[in-house]
Amino acid sequence: MSNVEGLLEQHGTPVQDVYLDWENGSVVDKEVLDAMIPIYLEKTYGNPAITHKMGWETYDFYVKAKTKIAKPLSINPQSLALTHSYTESNNLAIKGILPLNKKRKKIIVSEAEHLSVIHAAKSLFNQQYQVDIIPVSNDGTINLDVLQEKLDDNTLLVSLQTINHEIGTIQPIKKALEIVKDKNEDIFFHTDATSAFGRIPLDYSKIEVDMATISSNKILGPKGIAGLYVKEGVKIKALYEGQLSVEILSPDVENPALLAGFAKAVELQFSQFDEITSNITRLRDKLLYGLVTSIERAEVNGPSGKRRAPDNVNISYLGCEGEALTVECSMNGIYVSSGSACTSRVLMPSHILTAIGRKPEEAHGSLLMKLNRLNTEEQVNYVLERMPKIISRIRSITGGIEL
Amino acid sequence: MSNVEGLLEQHGTPVQDVYLDWENGSVVDKEVLDAMIPIYLEKTYGNPAITHKMGWETYDFYVKAKTKIAKPLSINPQSLALTHSYTESNNLAIKGILPLNKKRKKIIVSEAEHLSVIHAAKSLFNQQYQVDIIPVSNDGTINLDVLQEKLDDNTLLVSLQTINHEIGTIQPIKKALEIVKDKNEDIFFHTDATSAFGRIPLDYSKIEVDMATISSNKILGPKGIAGLYVKEGVKIKALYEGQLSVEILSPDVENPALLAGFAKAVELQFSQFDEITSNITRLRDKLLYGLVTSIERAEVNGPSGKRRAPDNVNISYLGCEGEALTVECSMNGIYVSSGSACTSRVLMPSHILTAIGRKPEEAHGSLLMKLNRLNTEEQVNYVLERMPKIISRIRSITGGIEL
Repeated sequence: MSNVEGLLEQHGTPVQDVYLDWENGSVVDKEVLDAMIPIYLEKTYGNPAITHKMGWETYDFYVKAKTKIAKPLSINPQSLALTHSYTESNNLAIKGILPLNKKRKKIIVSEAEHLSVIHAAKSLFNQQYQVDIIPVSNDGTINLDVLQEKLDDNTLLVSLQTINHEIGTIQPIKKALEIVKDKNEDIFFHTDATSAFGRIPLDYSKIEVDMATISSNKILGPKGIAGLYVKEGVKIKALYEGQLSVEILSPDVENPALLAGFAKAVELQFSQFDEITSNITRLRDKLLYGLVTSIERAEVNGPSGKRRAPDNVNISYLGCEGEALTVECSMNGIYVSSGSACTSRVLMPSHILTAIGRKPEEAHGSLLMKLNRLNTEEQVNYVLERMPKIISRIRSITGGIEL
Repeated sequence: MSNVEGLLEQHGTPVQDVYLDWENGSVVDKEVLDAMIPIYLEKTYGNPAITHKMGWETYDFYVKAKTKIAKPLSINPQSLALTHSYTESNNLAIKGILPLNKKRKKIIVSEAEHLSVIHAAKSLFNQQYQVDIIPVSNDGTINLDVLQEKLDDNTLLVSLQTINHEIGTIQPIKKALEIVKDKNEDIFFHTDATSAFGRIPLDYSKIEVDMATISSNKILGPKGIAGLYVKEGVKIKALYEGQLSVEILSPDVENPALLAGFAKAVELQFSQFDEITSNITRLRDKLLYGLVTSIERAEVNGPSGKRRAPDNVNISYLGCEGEALTVECSMNGIYVSSGSACTSRVLMPSHILTAIGRKPEEAHGSLLMKLNRLNTEEQVNYVLERMPKIISRIRSITGGIEL
C-alpha cells in the first residue's frame, strides 16, 4: 500500500457518502464522545484503586458504568470483566478456562466462528488439546446433531457464537446450551455475542451461558474496550500478568474514558432498542430485497426472515471480483467490505462463505453491509440506485466471465 | 469500598487541586483530545486493512502517526508494534520471545521491575523456565556484577527497566546491554522504557536493545494504547490470536482514535523536550528539597542528581501510615499515592521500597509524586506550604510512635 496517497488522489469526491462497513470500523455516537470528553480532560481520570478523592470518584463512576453495561444482559456487574477488545475476550474465555481445569482436553467450536475463536482454539493443538470443529448448514446454522455427537467426557469447553458476524445467522444458542449441559453440567459454554449485543435481546439470567463476549465498538461506542461476562462460580485465569487492579482478568485495563463511552453506547442502544431494531430491520429488508431483485446473478448469503440478524446484508454477485467491487463502490461513495474483511489483505475467500458451501468465485464476489441507527432511508435509496451500475461496470471489466 | 459515596461526601472541596499522581492516572492534554475528536466522529475511523476510501485514509494516517511516534526513538516505524498497554507490551516481550527460541530457558529480570515484568517472568516457572532476579542497590540501581554472574549459555532474555517507575532510578542500560551482548550476542535484551519515554533521550539506533516498551498515557496521551519496539530481525509471537490486521503482534488493535492521541502526545512532549525537562527538573528539585528540609524524619527514596528521573519525587515519612497520609493530602487537594500504588488495596509495602532495603514502616509512610508539564510553580509552593501540617497531623493521630 505504498501508493495509498495516489489511490486517494485518484478517488475523487463522491456525491454522497454512505458508510455501511460497520463490521470493520466505526465512528462513535456524538453523545458517546460527549460522555468521554470530561473524563479525558478533567474528571474521574484517576485510578480507581487509589485512596484519594480522584480515585474514589473514579471507583464510584466505575461501578456505576459497569452496572449500566450489565443491565441489558441481566447480569451482576461484578460478573463483567472488561477487556480491550472482543478478540481479547474470546481468547480469554478459551485460554483462561484451561489452567484451572486440566483434566479435560477437548474444545468444540463451529467453523463459522470469528477467527479470534478459531485461531485461539487451534493454538491449543501444541498443548495436546483436541479441537473439534463442527460444521454449519448452507445458511450458516450450527449443526446441533454433530455437536451432540462430539460431546464426550473429555470435553472442557464449547464456544459458539450467538450471531454470525458476516452472514447474520442467529444461532440456536439456547438449544445448543441445553444439549451441552444435558450431556454434562461441567462442560463450560462460551458464546461470542459480539454481533448480537444490541441487536437481539440477550438475557443471561434465563439462558445461563458460562461466558459471553460483548463489545463496545459494535454499538457506536469506542474501540479499545469490550467485555467478557463470566458467570458467578466460573473460575478463569488472566491471559497476562500485571499489577493488582480493579479488573482482575485484565490487570491494566482501568480505562475510565473508554468505559464512559462504552456505558453511554449501551444506554443509547438499549433505551430505544425496539424502535432502533424495527427501523434497521425495515431498512435491511428494503436493501437486501432491492439488491437481489434489481441485479442478476445475485445470491443472498445467510438465512432469511427471523433467523437473520436485523442489521446484516451479505450478497454474492457472480462474475465480480471483490476488491474491484469495493473500490468501485467506494468511488460511488458506498463503503462496504468483501469476502471476509478479516482476510482482505491476503485475498483469501472468507472462511465463513467457504463453510456454507460457497465456491471461491462466489465468496470473492460477496459484499458485506451492515446497518445501524445512523443509517437513513435516503442512504438505502442511494445504494439501491447506484449498485446495479456498479455491478454492471465490474462485470463488463472482467468480461462477464466466471472468475 | 461500598462507602465510597460517603467518603466523597465527607471529603469537602479543597481550596486548590494539585494532581501529582501521574503514575496512576492522567488526563490527556487538550491538544491530544483535539487530535482524537475528528477521528472519533468523522474521519479515518475506517479499518486500515480495507480497500475503500475510508480504509485508505486510515492506512495513510496510520503510517504517518506511527512515523511520528518512532521518530524520537530513531527507529523504523515498522519496528513499532502497537499494543493496548505497557503491561501488554512487557508481557509480549517476555512471553513472545519464547516460542521461537525453545532451546534456552533462563530469563533475568531485576527485583525493581514493574510487576507486569516480574509476574510475567515468574509465570514461566510452570513452563520449566528458570527466572533469575537480580538485586538493586539502596538507590535502586541494578547490580551489574550480579547480572554478569547470572549470564550463561542457557540465558534467553534479560529484561531491565530504563527508569524505575517508583523511585526514579535511571538505570545503566547501556552498560547492562554491553555486558549481556559481550557474553552472547544471541541473548535478547528488553527494556521497559515506560517511565523513561519523554523524560530522557532514548536513541535505539545507538543503544541497540532488542525490544523496548513505551506508553502513551505516561506522556498525557490516552490510555489503551502503548508500543513495543522490536528490532528488525528479532522474531516474536503474539500473545493471542485473531484476525489478520495491520498490527501482527496485537491482532485486533487498529485503533485510529487512540493512535492519533498517542502520536500527538509524542509530538507535544518532544517538540519542547529540553524546555519541558529543564522546567520539570527545577520544580522537582524545589519540591524534593523543600519536602525533606522542612519536615523531620523524612528520607528520600531513590538516587539524587543526574541519576534521578526529572519527574520523580519519592519520600518516606517515618511515623506515618500511608493510606492515612494520602487521604489527608487529598483533603488538602493534593493527590498522591503511597507505598506501591500497584498494591495499595492489599496494603503491602511496595516491592521496590523493600528491594532498596526500606523497612515496612518506611515503605508504608512513603509518598510518590510525579511532575509533568501541566504542573506549575504555584502548585509546588502550595504543596510545600501544606505538607508540614499534613505530616504533623498524621503523626499526632498515630501518637508519633513508630508504626
